[in-house]
Amino acid sequence: MDIQIGRGKTARRAYGIDEIALVPGNITLDPNVADTYWEIGGIQREIPIIASAMDGVVDVEMAVRLSELGALGVINLDGIQTRYADTAPILDKIASVGVTEFVGLMQQLYAEPVKPELIQKRIREIKDRGAIACASSTPANAEKYGEIAAAAGCDIFFLQSTVVSTTHIAPEGLQSLNLEEFCRKMPIPVVMGNCVTYEVTLQLLNAGAAGILVGIGPGAACTSRGVLGVGLPQATAIADCAAARNDFFKQTGKYVPIIADGGLITGGDICKSIACGADGVMIGSPFARAKEAPGRGFHWGMATPSPVLPRGTRIRVGTTGSIEQILRGPAGLDDGTHNLLGALKTSMGTLGAKTLKEMQQVEVVVAPSLLTEGKVYQKAQQLGMGK
Amino acid sequence: MDIQIGRGKTARRAYGIDEIALVPGNITLDPNVADTYWEIGGIQREIPIIASAMDGVVDVEMAVRLSELGALGVINLDGIQTRYADTAPILDKIASVGVTEFVGLMQQLYAEPVKPELIQKRIREIKDRGAIACASSTPANAEKYGEIAAAAGCDIFFLQSTVVSTTHIAPEGLQSLNLEEFCRKMPIPVVMGNCVTYEVTLQLLNAGAAGILVGIGPGAACTSRGVLGVGLPQATAIADCAAARNDFFKQTGKYVPIIADGGLITGGDICKSIACGADGVMIGSPFARAKEAPGRGFHWGMATPSPVLPRGTRIRVGTTGSIEQILRGPAGLDDGTHNLLGALKTSMGTLGAKTLKEMQQVEVVVAPSLLTEGKVYQKAQQLGMGK
Amino acid sequence: MDIQIGRGKTARRAYGIDEIALVPGNITLDPNVADTYWEIGGIQREIPIIASAMDGVVDVEMAVRLSELGALGVINLDGIQTRYADTAPILDKIASVGVTEFVGLMQQLYAEPVKPELIQKRIREIKDRGAIACASSTPANAEKYGEIAAAAGCDIFFLQSTVVSTTHIAPEGLQSLNLEEFCRKMPIPVVMGNCVTYEVTLQLLNAGAAGILVGIGPGAACTSRGVLGVGLPQATAIADCAAARNDFFKQTGKYVPIIADGGLITGGDICKSIACGADGVMIGSPFARAKEAPGRGFHWGMATPSPVLPRGTRIRVGTTGSIEQILRGPAGLDDGTHNLLGALKTSMGTLGAKTLKEMQQVEVVVAPSLLTEGKVYQKAQQLGMGK
Amino acid sequence: MDIQIGRGKTARRAYGIDEIALVPGNITLDPNVADTYWEIGGIQREIPIIASAMDGVVDVEMAVRLSELGALGVINLDGIQTRYADTAPILDKIASVGVTEFVGLMQQLYAEPVKPELIQKRIREIKDRGAIACASSTPANAEKYGEIAAAAGCDIFFLQSTVVSTTHIAPEGLQSLNLEEFCRKMPIPVVMGNCVTYEVTLQLLNAGAAGILVGIGPGAACTSRGVLGVGLPQATAIADCAAARNDFFKQTGKYVPIIADGGLITGGDICKSIACGADGVMIGSPFARAKEAPGRGFHWGMATPSPVLPRGTRIRVGTTGSIEQILRGPAGLDDGTHNLLGALKTSMGTLGAKTLKEMQQVEVVVAPSLLTEGKVYQKAQQLGMGK
Repeated sequence: MDIQIGRGKTARRAYGIDEIALVPGNITLDPNVADTYWEIGGIQREIPIIASAMDGVVDVEMAVRLSELGALGVINLDGIQTRYADTAPILDKIASVGVTEFVGLMQQLYAEPVKPELIQKRIREIKDRGAIACASSTPANAEKYGEIAAAAGCDIFFLQSTVVSTTHIAPEGLQSLNLEEFCRKMPIPVVMGNCVTYEVTLQLLNAGAAGILVGIGPGAACTSRGVLGVGLPQATAIADCAAARNDFFKQTGKYVPIIADGGLITGGDICKSIACGADGVMIGSPFARAKEAPGRGFHWGMATPSPVLPRGTRIRVGTTGSIEQILRGPAGLDDGTHNLLGALKTSMGTLGAKTLKEMQQVEVVVAPSLLTEGKVYQKAQQLGMGK
Repeated sequence: MDIQIGRGKTARRAYGIDEIALVPGNITLDPNVADTYWEIGGIQREIPIIASAMDGVVDVEMAVRLSELGALGVINLDGIQTRYADTAPILDKIASVGVTEFVGLMQQLYAEPVKPELIQKRIREIKDRGAIACASSTPANAEKYGEIAAAAGCDIFFLQSTVVSTTHIAPEGLQSLNLEEFCRKMPIPVVMGNCVTYEVTLQLLNAGAAGILVGIGPGAACTSRGVLGVGLPQATAIADCAAARNDFFKQTGKYVPIIADGGLITGGDICKSIACGADGVMIGSPFARAKEAPGRGFHWGMATPSPVLPRGTRIRVGTTGSIEQILRGPAGLDDGTHNLLGALKTSMGTLGAKTLKEMQQVEVVVAPSLLTEGKVYQKAQQLGMGK
Repeated sequence: MDIQIGRGKTARRAYGIDEIALVPGNITLDPNVADTYWEIGGIQREIPIIASAMDGVVDVEMAVRLSELGALGVINLDGIQTRYADTAPILDKIASVGVTEFVGLMQQLYAEPVKPELIQKRIREIKDRGAIACASSTPANAEKYGEIAAAAGCDIFFLQSTVVSTTHIAPEGLQSLNLEEFCRKMPIPVVMGNCVTYEVTLQLLNAGAAGILVGIGPGAACTSRGVLGVGLPQATAIADCAAARNDFFKQTGKYVPIIADGGLITGGDICKSIACGADGVMIGSPFARAKEAPGRGFHWGMATPSPVLPRGTRIRVGTTGSIEQILRGPAGLDDGTHNLLGALKTSMGTLGAKTLKEMQQVEVVVAPSLLTEGKVYQKAQQLGMGK
Repeated sequence: MDIQIGRGKTARRAYGIDEIALVPGNITLDPNVADTYWEIGGIQREIPIIASAMDGVVDVEMAVRLSELGALGVINLDGIQTRYADTAPILDKIASVGVTEFVGLMQQLYAEPVKPELIQKRIREIKDRGAIACASSTPANAEKYGEIAAAAGCDIFFLQSTVVSTTHIAPEGLQSLNLEEFCRKMPIPVVMGNCVTYEVTLQLLNAGAAGILVGIGPGAACTSRGVLGVGLPQATAIADCAAARNDFFKQTGKYVPIIADGGLITGGDICKSIACGADGVMIGSPFARAKEAPGRGFHWGMATPSPVLPRGTRIRVGTTGSIEQILRGPAGLDDGTHNLLGALKTSMGTLGAKTLKEMQQVEVVVAPSLLTEGKVYQKAQQLGMGK
């Protein structure tokens, strides 16, 4: 159904996670009956949540804890962890500067090159503690870093850029990464993203992706939409990419998970993403609030700070509890950011979904929580902005 | 009319109470001509308003006053009142802690078990003063507490959980409450909820419900939507459930009231709920502002604080007048939270509705009070946020 | 085009003034070419703006100045001016009390009865200075006060209640005002309102109204929508009532003006009201900001403060200039609240409308000024709420 | 598709830049491959951005720097620069007064007449430094100032008023500017605006315009919509006017650029304008933040301050970097207001658009960034408005 923007320009309406809600059906379940297991790259996990490959979210310690708790964490091979052997003073510095100094500091810190031996070291530190190791890199460095990571024992490789495509046009004389070839060469599964459309998802699946990251433009620490005008609201993006997964499965018999990535903060956001068709989610800021998180209460964007076009924003998210509390409870907060597994199981129970596949089929309504005057008043009171 | 969220995912648009308004017709009435009587569980009341079974809203004193004034109040058998003989110091404590300590305190206070003798005591205290006694419990404790309450003289029993269904799947080896059997066994009428759909309402009515509580996710002190992603905007939920009531009445000749519960704050909200098809409403926060309310100016969610997934939020609502002023006036405030009966009668007069049945038929328009720039400015000025 | 709120409940979408904008056509005019003359009750005026019958807006001085400047002001016969011979200390008191004392004070001040001799006195004071005298009353007092006002020389009588209808059902033993009879008996033209529908407008016109006030629920100092749930967004209300005016004109040859009343603050609001079909507007708060206004920088609702259901809200609007600046300029402010005539003429010039009749035909688009994140930031900065 | 506002009043829905987003397709490009060249008035430029003819944005120094950096700046011949030989103390004064004194000061400063010799001087200062000189005037002064500017070496003339049309009705005895005649007489290309419709664009093109400025009502420092009710959301306006450009090109073979002007702040806004069909953009506030800008960290509306109807608003925009940083980077800020060329190239790369013509064809979705409760909270935190 096309919307007429103006003469000769049509568009469709896309929907965000904030604009939908889930409606209970005729059956309810005890949360303990809800089964949240999923599989990615041949690995089964109880919790369908992956921690983002961001400096302030995942280091070795976090990767190990996430793995132990039933989830996954991805270490960023283009970030602080592989540029500095001793990251503590670096992270202290990032947390200590003012807003106006932040961009300049990040540009300076990222001028330090990535060191192959640190890639190897980080992966081994994770594996030595019996945990699952996931690592990410941008396409530009994927061949070099991917080989080192795989050799060091990495379990799953995440090839991630703001927008990925199988057809990337490079400047004359340069060569783009061939994604199909890369998947074939890599001895470990390769998850790819981000993308938001049916077509690109299908192309990435045909190229051999072991998972698809879905999400461009909707994230709290991602300013793609403001800086570039680019983005697709997440509910629509997930549904479209999930449709490609289903069609690929019908054609090939291979079921490859779709992972919603970006703009998800609460348990409710995670539940709604799965209801739109996702198999799992990747989240950053909720984990940045863990006391074990490397960010010291701050969270900032993953895009490698560019000397010409910085895009990440640093947000003070605070520290609210342990990673265990955040993932499995007991919850010490009532705002939907603690005990994410409990929230998912309770939501599934409420909606009568026994498995994640059933959760993908629950009824969705468009229910924009428009800010009416009453709600602004109420919200302002809660924020202490009124009298 | 289906909305396309994305490929293979459709939804319908649901509407909230804030998004609608009522349009006067060709006739007006003097408010004194408006008849607001309704019946629930065989009991006739002048005011179609029930106070929520919440710790900060209903204790024995409030239940008695509400009954005397023509309304009803429900005492929560899973709450503070039945866990502690002397609730005053407990309520003082809840009112005194900071936001960060609240969840922990509630988890600790609710570790104290419910005492059967206190259930009996609270019901008798209400009945001894000649008032109507209503009590609520979750399904888990309904059989045990229900029997005690009925024996003590309780008039109406409220079986209430966030989401209720006639088909609840329990963990292996455990048994779910059979709602039909429970209604048959209980010697007093059983009101049930909450639900939001036509189908579940019909199932609960067939199970023998004496009233249906409608509302999941829209409430001020209820964070279902944020934590679980679950909810249905209230105007749509009421209209759907009221349609089930009408169809059940056509089939059986039994008229069972639909009670809108959640997110209603002002007289206007109450009027709009009835215009969508409700017979009565259940409200919490407006009563938490009474000087007789047990909450000492605070209001918090009803869901039993869970050690794994706390969901209630405590809001400072302040104390604005007596319960009489709030229900029947004279109003000392002009924001729609005082003299709720007067507001209902005036609205009915304005709209030309002589009875609540006629009020259910008045014209509704979709009229979102979108926050335009001018309104934010104006609102900010009123809140003292501007200069 | 019906919207499905839920099963068995449909609604139409109504539009507010804030949701529309006016689109220039192929012709532009010099503002001096724009003719803004209109006629009401046989009286021609240059400016299609009437000041509301509110305590803080119109007293004798304001009525005279408005008349001299080409507009009109209506004195409220149920208000402060006819209850107190010396209003200065009363108005000082209203301006001096705190928010919490306001409602109580108004209830106390309005306990003082209206005095017939003061009605006479106020009308004569206006007439003695050569100005046009307009006076208003609620239906309850219309026969008594109307006769006195007409006898004293009043030019136009405004019969005004929140919602007016030709069929008002009074309590048994009491009699409602017969509007047709009242118009016939009154020796001067009677403007009536407020209403919002085609049908009621047609009934009022058939009853003999000399003008129709359109607007229920949208005003800044009117809380009908919050307290009663009643209201219709103004763009839709104006268009519907204007259609009744046109049909009445076709049937009878009598052209009776439609006056948009409520929620209009800026010159743009006035222009948009006329573009929706209004012949003139009635505004309160912009005039309450005049240094000649009786409200001392405050503005409050017109509905007679009821001892049971107060509905007015007092807003501090400040004092920004003279009534001449507000009506005819020169403007000392750039926010659209000064030089309302100049704004109307400039808008007509921009849109190529030579007369108000042409202005009623300009192109309207639905253009909600949704608050996007960027605009909140920007607005917050302008309000000094950010850093 | 018509929307029914009310009986007999229909409207179409118009869309703003904030309501849309751009969706990546199947191909991506390296930003260095993206070609951003465009042509206006026979002059080729690398950057499709023009700095607005506003007092706080363009003086001789800024015009020269913008030209050197690959963009363009327009000097306002009706502004401060041509009224005062020494503008420094004037601009200091504007920056120093309080909000309440601003309008009065501007009225006083503009009482000083424009001096022909200063027009000549400013143009020559720009040309003497080897830069491209663009100058603007309102229609009232266009013939007089245009001739002087062209004689002094001006390259492109901008004829600009809030709303321009080929048919302007002047007061009796006065004559309107004939646009077709003016274009024919002027020895240099004439860019015209502003307009927002297909029909007026076509008329201006037929009159000989060398470029069309599109935008009425959407700008941050433009209060047309509040004061006059006039405006059209920019996405719709651009699409409509671009359709006229395409039809004119088909008929005549002449390709005349469409320039989006008003309400554009970030790189994303610029990208979205081009995706809607614009060839270039005119922006003010982002350049007012340059340390070379004459506004000293302030920005105010261009409409000549009128003694009767002031419309400009002064906003404190701050100073964030050099004009080079703002246009070409390196970015020192991550909010989308630095390195606008880099943002455009990156967006084009992300979307797979090799040229601006391809960028005009990328997929657009309607994706309103509605402010949900969560986002208000988050935004409020970022603004430091919460705790």
